[in-house]
Amino acid sequence: MGLKTKAEYVESLREMRPTVYMFGERVKDVVGNPRLRAGIESTGMTYELAEMEEHRELIVARSPLINEPVNRFNLPPASIADLVARVKINRLLGNLVGTCHQRCTGLDCLCALAIVSFDIDQKHGTGYYPRFLEFLKHMQRRDLTANAGVTDVKGDRSLGPCQQPDPDVFLHVVDQGEEGIVVKGAKAHQTGSLSSHEIIVLPTRALRAGEEEFALAFAAPSDSKNLIHVVGRSSLDTRELDGCDCGNTRFSKYCPTVIFDEVFVPWGRVFMFGEVEFAREYVGRFSAFHRQSHGGCKAGKIDCMVGAALTMMDYNGTSQASHLKQKAIDMIHKAETLYGCSLAASYEGKQEPSGTFFIDPVLANASKIHEGKEMAEAIRLMIDISGGFVADLPSEKDFANPEVGPLLAKYLKGCAEVPVENRVRMYRFIEKLALESADTVSDIHGGGSPEAHRITILRESDLEAKKRAARKLAGIDD
Amino acid sequence: MGLKTKAEYVESLREMRPTVYMFGERVKDVVGNPRLRAGIESTGMTYELAEMEEHRELIVARSPLINEPVNRFNLPPASIADLVARVKINRLLGNLVGTCHQRCTGLDCLCALAIVSFDIDQKHGTGYYPRFLEFLKHMQRRDLTANAGVTDVKGDRSLGPCQQPDPDVFLHVVDQGEEGIVVKGAKAHQTGSLSSHEIIVLPTRALRAGEEEFALAFAAPSDSKNLIHVVGRSSLDTRELDGCDCGNTRFSKYCPTVIFDEVFVPWGRVFMFGEVEFAREYVGRFSAFHRQSHGGCKAGKIDCMVGAALTMMDYNGTSQASHLKQKAIDMIHKAETLYGCSLAASYEGKQEPSGTFFIDPVLANASKIHEGKEMAEAIRLMIDISGGFVADLPSEKDFANPEVGPLLAKYLKGCAEVPVENRVRMYRFIEKLALESADTVSDIHGGGSPEAHRITILRESDLEAKKRAARKLAGIDD
Amino acid sequence: MGLKTKAEYVESLREMRPTVYMFGERVKDVVGNPRLRAGIESTGMTYELAEMEEHRELIVARSPLINEPVNRFNLPPASIADLVARVKINRLLGNLVGTCHQRCTGLDCLCALAIVSFDIDQKHGTGYYPRFLEFLKHMQRRDLTANAGVTDVKGDRSLGPCQQPDPDVFLHVVDQGEEGIVVKGAKAHQTGSLSSHEIIVLPTRALRAGEEEFALAFAAPSDSKNLIHVVGRSSLDTRELDGCDCGNTRFSKYCPTVIFDEVFVPWGRVFMFGEVEFAREYVGRFSAFHRQSHGGCKAGKIDCMVGAALTMMDYNGTSQASHLKQKAIDMIHKAETLYGCSLAASYEGKQEPSGTFFIDPVLANASKIHEGKEMAEAIRLMIDISGGFVADLPSEKDFANPEVGPLLAKYLKGCAEVPVENRVRMYRFIEKLALESADTVSDIHGGGSPEAHRITILRESDLEAKKRAARKLAGIDD
Amino acid sequence: MGLKTKAEYVESLREMRPTVYMFGERVKDVVGNPRLRAGIESTGMTYELAEMEEHRELIVARSPLINEPVNRFNLPPASIADLVARVKINRLLGNLVGTCHQRCTGLDCLCALAIVSFDIDQKHGTGYYPRFLEFLKHMQRRDLTANAGVTDVKGDRSLGPCQQPDPDVFLHVVDQGEEGIVVKGAKAHQTGSLSSHEIIVLPTRALRAGEEEFALAFAAPSDSKNLIHVVGRSSLDTRELDGCDCGNTRFSKYCPTVIFDEVFVPWGRVFMFGEVEFAREYVGRFSAFHRQSHGGCKAGKIDCMVGAALTMMDYNGTSQASHLKQKAIDMIHKAETLYGCSLAASYEGKQEPSGTFFIDPVLANASKIHEGKEMAEAIRLMIDISGGFVADLPSEKDFANPEVGPLLAKYLKGCAEVPVENRVRMYRFIEKLALESADTVSDIHGGGSPEAHRITILRESDLEAKKRAARKLAGIDD
Repeated sequence: MGLKTKAEYVESLREMRPTVYMFGERVKDVVGNPRLRAGIESTGMTYELAEMEEHRELIVARSPLINEPVNRFNLPPASIADLVARVKINRLLGNLVGTCHQRCTGLDCLCALAIVSFDIDQKHGTGYYPRFLEFLKHMQRRDLTANAGVTDVKGDRSLGPCQQPDPDVFLHVVDQGEEGIVVKGAKAHQTGSLSSHEIIVLPTRALRAGEEEFALAFAAPSDSKNLIHVVGRSSLDTRELDGCDCGNTRFSKYCPTVIFDEVFVPWGRVFMFGEVEFAREYVGRFSAFHRQSHGGCKAGKIDCMVGAALTMMDYNGTSQASHLKQKAIDMIHKAETLYGCSLAASYEGKQEPSGTFFIDPVLANASKIHEGKEMAEAIRLMIDISGGFVADLPSEKDFANPEVGPLLAKYLKGCAEVPVENRVRMYRFIEKLALESADTVSDIHGGGSPEAHRITILRESDLEAKKRAARKLAGIDD
Repeated sequence: MGLKTKAEYVESLREMRPTVYMFGERVKDVVGNPRLRAGIESTGMTYELAEMEEHRELIVARSPLINEPVNRFNLPPASIADLVARVKINRLLGNLVGTCHQRCTGLDCLCALAIVSFDIDQKHGTGYYPRFLEFLKHMQRRDLTANAGVTDVKGDRSLGPCQQPDPDVFLHVVDQGEEGIVVKGAKAHQTGSLSSHEIIVLPTRALRAGEEEFALAFAAPSDSKNLIHVVGRSSLDTRELDGCDCGNTRFSKYCPTVIFDEVFVPWGRVFMFGEVEFAREYVGRFSAFHRQSHGGCKAGKIDCMVGAALTMMDYNGTSQASHLKQKAIDMIHKAETLYGCSLAASYEGKQEPSGTFFIDPVLANASKIHEGKEMAEAIRLMIDISGGFVADLPSEKDFANPEVGPLLAKYLKGCAEVPVENRVRMYRFIEKLALESADTVSDIHGGGSPEAHRITILRESDLEAKKRAARKLAGIDD
Repeated sequence: MGLKTKAEYVESLREMRPTVYMFGERVKDVVGNPRLRAGIESTGMTYELAEMEEHRELIVARSPLINEPVNRFNLPPASIADLVARVKINRLLGNLVGTCHQRCTGLDCLCALAIVSFDIDQKHGTGYYPRFLEFLKHMQRRDLTANAGVTDVKGDRSLGPCQQPDPDVFLHVVDQGEEGIVVKGAKAHQTGSLSSHEIIVLPTRALRAGEEEFALAFAAPSDSKNLIHVVGRSSLDTRELDGCDCGNTRFSKYCPTVIFDEVFVPWGRVFMFGEVEFAREYVGRFSAFHRQSHGGCKAGKIDCMVGAALTMMDYNGTSQASHLKQKAIDMIHKAETLYGCSLAASYEGKQEPSGTFFIDPVLANASKIHEGKEMAEAIRLMIDISGGFVADLPSEKDFANPEVGPLLAKYLKGCAEVPVENRVRMYRFIEKLALESADTVSDIHGGGSPEAHRITILRESDLEAKKRAARKLAGIDD
Repeated sequence: MGLKTKAEYVESLREMRPTVYMFGERVKDVVGNPRLRAGIESTGMTYELAEMEEHRELIVARSPLINEPVNRFNLPPASIADLVARVKINRLLGNLVGTCHQRCTGLDCLCALAIVSFDIDQKHGTGYYPRFLEFLKHMQRRDLTANAGVTDVKGDRSLGPCQQPDPDVFLHVVDQGEEGIVVKGAKAHQTGSLSSHEIIVLPTRALRAGEEEFALAFAAPSDSKNLIHVVGRSSLDTRELDGCDCGNTRFSKYCPTVIFDEVFVPWGRVFMFGEVEFAREYVGRFSAFHRQSHGGCKAGKIDCMVGAALTMMDYNGTSQASHLKQKAIDMIHKAETLYGCSLAASYEGKQEPSGTFFIDPVLANASKIHEGKEMAEAIRLMIDISGGFVADLPSEKDFANPEVGPLLAKYLKGCAEVPVENRVRMYRFIEKLALESADTVSDIHGGGSPEAHRITILRESDLEAKKRAARKLAGIDD
């Protein structure tokens, strides 16, 4: 055991037997499916990093728990340096894959578990934290990838879990016994669920007394019995399936809906059951970590977009246009803002009772609020800089056609010194960066909706201190 | 002859024999190709309007030229009311098709021809305007659709037409004789070129002495010999081809690159050749009209997006969420801004020497600048309001699958009173509105790049008057 | 009688005897007070316009009521052309005074009265409209200026008028008799109340049954007994009082709080009393007209700001800096957006039962929403373009000092060909444009708070039609 | 010697004899002038902090140079912790004074000197660094305040220093001898020059060969012979002079133009003379540090604005209005963004050859770009939340008037439980926060113009790395 190579990682997935549907059909060979494989390749890069001399030090660290080197994606932060490393690794990965690498959500769950399971035990005398440590050892020793099962499908949003006509729209316990529990429900937007060995389930919202059956945290293998992955459509999904016009030559992303159609979970993998007051803690901690993660990887994605836009300026002969440079500056500024706030959130982290470090939630959410608004704007700027062929570039099949291909090569040519195929490839890549739904929608809704980020900074700010400062300067006695 | 029904329009296209490539293969049956047909249906709605009792008065007007009722898409404006009608028709069509209807560019070319060909004749004693009137009668009598061949592929953007290594990257005359001229080059982003009977070609930029061979305006049938349409890819193009998960149940858009591989044009259809100082006039007038058109149709598209977002709030149970209402207000505000500036540009129009009315270019460009920035933001807001399933909704094939379909129907259910299939359809439609590349990229680059719109309002504003007003108030004597 | 010259206007104010406080002291000579006079001069320009050959046709029109030429500021619109003229006059005045001319609010009240008093009579058989017509004749024949007494001080905003501990925080009737009514309360932000002959009072909000005493519309002379004007501070108010560093060499603005400390109003000047359901109508119509007015005058103010910024570029030697040109374009775009939406609101106006024309409220509010956000941004851009001396330019007294003055003239010199005093004057004017509180705060709160504008466009839009369009395209049967 | 109390600081200024003009007159008693005193009080708070038990640890640190505790405003950073402390102190001070405390610029000069004077010596074998250390000891031992003399008046911006008709518009050496140099010129926007003991002069821009006379760095006492401070006007300057309606009860800011009318500087205080290639280094390092400083203090100022706005919501009865809460969240978000990027710039600092630590310039400028745009927006939001009385609140003299004062107290009352004087004071404070020109213009132009910040992030970013990442993913071989 120990660190897996990227090849070993792919092999380990090949051995799993998840239940998968896509386009109305069962997918038996996940690893061999080009669309799913492109997502697996993205996560695979987190393994490759550990094989690369120049990055190994960044991604590999010794786990005090097993006293072995582990991939940082299985290492809850035990120091400020660990928090900072998360952001820097994510930005690097954003550069290396140009999309979502999909392994952060599992780590973000592990981080939340490392804090909250301990706190529950402190209050209730339960034994969740030791169970969590066992699970963590399992993850670390095998260098596994986990996925975050957080977002319930939710039914009617104006109703709480107990008020729903169908109680299953929030995942809950439908049976329990000596061995464990049986859960039912569905989790949406499960990025990379088939690139993962384990699904870690946390509650999707704060809960109150009477909602104990929904107050759940646990882990289940991604090929558990009665667990069904339905891979949703994304805008460019047939490109990978056809192996044509992919844009990103190797990497992509997919997001199944995962249905827990009465899945059994042994007690040893249950990290909360019924302690409703900690539901908010779990989802809050997870979300805060996840928003910090985004600050790194999305900055890295903007780096790719800036690089693509600047390259296209070189290819189009517009690299001296001052108005386009201004737009590139705007893009860079957005990347650095996401990154800066996320880094600051890390450097300003604090240690929790369990020993795990937690980031500053106000700064992490400040980063995420920018992401939710500014990624779309960065994409718009990239399209503006690059030109209209982002919309309607002929297919590589057209370029390969003997009649029309040479004509296209003639007419799509930009600057003399740039091979036309390079310009075509860069346009295709920009199309992917701009119009891949699974990726672009997560800029907005990943890590909770934009409103959640906003409410968090209001709730976590010391408003009374701000009021006192104002009153004092205005000459108002308290 | 006279007004065509929508059915007659489709039949008239069926009789044409254009040269078309898509995905590296020849397309023989344009009308029968589902992807192209979805675009044809959009343009078809401009014919349907004339068949609808409630809208006939808006879309049909009497042409003084042929003294018959014609579709307004073949009627250059002869009054302020005609200018205003353009905007209102476009907004209505935006509501009816939820995408680009593709017939405005032809009209915008006719409008530019109706002004500039006359002005050239006035200066040079040429006979372009009478030729244009003959062509216009041909368009009106047969109720034809035209497409704007304006955007050259341009090669190296830092070089002028004569400096390019390959002179063909700007369309130009390569031969001429008694009968007519032979032209060579390519026009990009030819929205609806196969939904059109005619291609009207105008120059893509201002020209100067020495560039006479590029100073060209003419019309050619879309199935001319040696004219090749290569239909580019768009993000959701396989949806229509597969007939699955289309989102918009009937309408779409496609954008070929059109190659003029030595196309013959008879003199009777040439409306400029060599009068370089009028190249800027042609492209400027066309662009100004086209930006006014966008102000209508894109407002209509936002209407659809607002309607989709509000419907999804109803379906999700979030219709009382004040933060979502605020976002809907932002969307409405954008629609009304586009529309208001475009309407104002129309009401403030002026008559040109030929008798045709021209819009106020500052106000028309003010509208377009908003479009270039705010459509992307409106889409972002729609996604924010609607939720994450815009990214990854399972396919209708999954819903149809007997094993997994019922589970999806159970878990995708929103509010109790809304059939789950309605919610699924609305998500699919939102995906189409948000992520169709042919449509969304035109928000940015349609009618010229954003910088062109900005420079226009600077150039067309009376800056000296503004300075004088400031100096006077500051007490500075002129 | 008939049209007043500007000199006659000032004389007419000199004959009035209002009760005025400023800086804790009574002001007896309103016209002779430099600060108030600068505001009077602004309104005076609306009279001067009628004396200027080139503008007379725009500002003077024949009133069908008295069959005489009147100033348009006393002419409720009886046609689309009248609505449009409002916007164009306001933009022109913005250019001529570089601040608020203060006469629009009175006209906006007259417009509201011309619609609503008629509608009340129609429903209740009251006789308000004839009274209004008499009052309008009085205004027209004497060419008087009126001020809008709309904004109550409101006390605790979470409470309605009847719930307030002090009932006087909403103006109400405290006594009534055969002759008339006695009213008590206070109206805030009464721009130009001392430049006006009459105060026209309308309710500040929608009212309901039980709030009859607050449902009031009437007119009172600005020097009525027990009517007290307390001129509030504005940021640069001592400049005019000291006659030094004024920036705008002639024009300014001031905003009193006006207290009705039991003011008697004869019945002939009461235009609503107790018809609570029309309170919303009065304030809504007034606000809609006022927002349309802003679209003109604020565009005109931005014109001045653009002119000032471009002039400063000339003076500083930065007129070729492309990034500054971009900022000037942004400013122009904001002006045209306000103007375009306001114009469109006018052209799309409709006739009301009384015969008066009403603007399109959605488009008028679309303009105002931009103003509330973008005027501050236009100011920021002007400061950015102009440079840091907007903050801290030495006083003209320093320039006049024999020791330090020559040194300042030496060091404040910009381009060689520009006299240093011109540069100094322009900086001073820019300071005035940027930092005059009475002016800049009205960009945000004038015509109701920004939220009011937003709610209006939501309420006035046809949301169901938008939903239907979306559902139809998505394939959802109604 | 050693740390000064705030009282000692004021006394030390009282002993100086600077040449000062304001409103065309000499000011002999700087400390006794209420307007200048309000600025001195702001800087005084940096001394008070060291007297406050709870903050002493933050502001006082041991200097290795003199082995004594010193105020951090005289301590160039020798560690990451020192860099971080700068930001946190500045945010705290922003809360404590609600305006600019004015002492950061001196420290930012000391930081630049601590890096660049060393680097010059390394290259040229000069002895600037030892001189600097002596000067630093002088500053530390006496706990002095310095001011940054960086911004030259610049004359015609399109011309370099040697091309100007008047060479004095860039400060330069006009004579030199054994004892030292004589300099002539003027520095603009010298915030707090009279609250300072020393003026530290650095070049204002990059220089090239032939411009040696302008390549200058030195220190001069603020009461040097022939050094003239002309205190410019700011929007609310007469408030402090009149002692009325100040808003901020104790603190303010002023910005003189400082004229060096042939000032002698001994060699021991010259830290560069003629090494033109280091001019860019000096101004660049200074600016980078200063932009980092702003990230702290402006966040602290927004804290005050948020506190003021929230308090006003309490006072007005609007604390439950969701749209106002959303605006408060926007304000908080801006503060945290400035702070986060500035903190990150500090944590990511690097050690320079002299041992001094330098911040990350991209992240520091990312913070400043937000400031330049978002402070104006934060002010706008504060005004929006607070209401129209920001524009035109009656004077405290009106409230004190026996006739009208009680009426104002009655009508200005908000919520029942809030004394009216508190509401009035808070409005006055908000007016100060929003409309003090010296403060608000520095949000835009402080630390260099917005364009300078933008160019810096473009120049300092690794653009080639971004392009490589994009090309690799697009499948383009390098």
